[in-house]
Amino acid sequence: MAAPDPDRLRRQISFLLEADKLKSVLRRTPIADNSRLENSAEHSWHLALAALVLDEWAPAGSDTLHAMRLVIVHDLVEIDAGDTFAYDPAANVGKAVREHAAAGRIFGLLPPDQAASFRSLWEEFEAQETPSSRYANALDRLQPLLVNFEAGGGSWVTYSVRRPQVLKRMEPIRRWMPAAWPHVLEIIDRACAAGLIVVDNAVTRP
Amino acid sequence: MAAPDPDRLRRQISFLLEADKLKSVLRRTPIADNSRLENSAEHSWHLALAALVLDEWAPAGSDTLHAMRLVIVHDLVEIDAGDTFAYDPAANVGKAVREHAAAGRIFGLLPPDQAASFRSLWEEFEAQETPSSRYANALDRLQPLLVNFEAGGGSWVTYSVRRPQVLKRMEPIRRWMPAAWPHVLEIIDRACAAGLIVVDNAVTRP
Repeated sequence: MAAPDPDRLRRQISFLLEADKLKSVLRRTPIADNSRLENSAEHSWHLALAALVLDEWAPAGSDTLHAMRLVIVHDLVEIDAGDTFAYDPAANVGKAVREHAAAGRIFGLLPPDQAASFRSLWEEFEAQETPSSRYANALDRLQPLLVNFEAGGGSWVTYSVRRPQVLKRMEPIRRWMPAAWPHVLEIIDRACAAGLIVVDNAVTRP
Repeated sequence: MAAPDPDRLRRQISFLLEADKLKSVLRRTPIADNSRLENSAEHSWHLALAALVLDEWAPAGSDTLHAMRLVIVHDLVEIDAGDTFAYDPAANVGKAVREHAAAGRIFGLLPPDQAASFRSLWEEFEAQETPSSRYANALDRLQPLLVNFEAGGGSWVTYSVRRPQVLKRMEPIRRWMPAAWPHVLEIIDRACAAGLIVVDNAVTRP
């Protein structure tokens, strides 16, 4: 290991203090007791815990600890780019451009070697090509589903989300955590039956 | 791997929803912009990120990813036991008993094999005997120091904390991240000079 470099430590601390702002980025989903909206920092913690707890349901080849690393880093770009609501197509226009610029600035606060390695973690998460990143993405869909259901509907109710939209959004769980999918589908069906998700028969069964 | 067991998944989900309550456990330190108090879930995320970023300052033999696992789990007992303010000796009486009971209930929501392994992660963090747990504990002291300083004093100012108390509290950094200690001491000295930490000459230099 190289000699301790105080300048590297200063840059690392600057980055950590900038990262603190993720605690003020609000998501559309509430926390489970429905008392307030969730922020992206505590959401990221919840995903890391879920990665540890649910690893027997992860896709073959996934590395649980690497998936934790991905979820800890995955939302940092929101400090500049904001949280883009999954069920709002208009808001998703330009998302990639905004987030790439954000990654450049935020990870660029780190010493250059770390800026590159942290950016590549974020890119790996986004690309969903490695087993660990597929597991991480599936968890990023599952956690808000669990919290919405527990909270009595959460963002589904606030934005009148329809069943086909939820099924499309949950596709990474069906594909990459297939053994868990029947239970997840059961939760979706219970949410539909309870009126928390709109069952739009005209669209789903033409 | 064993066949998928829906009952295990149900227990794992119950645990994850119980864990959500950590988002409502408030600490005495604010977030860095001083707009509100920090909660223990987002604090745990910040520690996991710090574990990744600062790993070149970790003690020999520490495993960064294992340290992340420890910090993700370390505060879950606070759901029952509450956050015990480090600078309040009275509040720390009975802390261990409260936290052990909490660990039994909260980790006990998991399937038995996982209940045991998660509990042992928490015990490893508390014992501070392994290099990874020493790194995790040092980060758990460093993060509130950085945030307090950035926030203009935070809990130091609110509770009139004195320099010897801060030095004692930061002892794990001095011992287990010694290369980073001169910079940390510089931050403490700047906080003293700015009046954010009480310099009690009568006590420190009798």
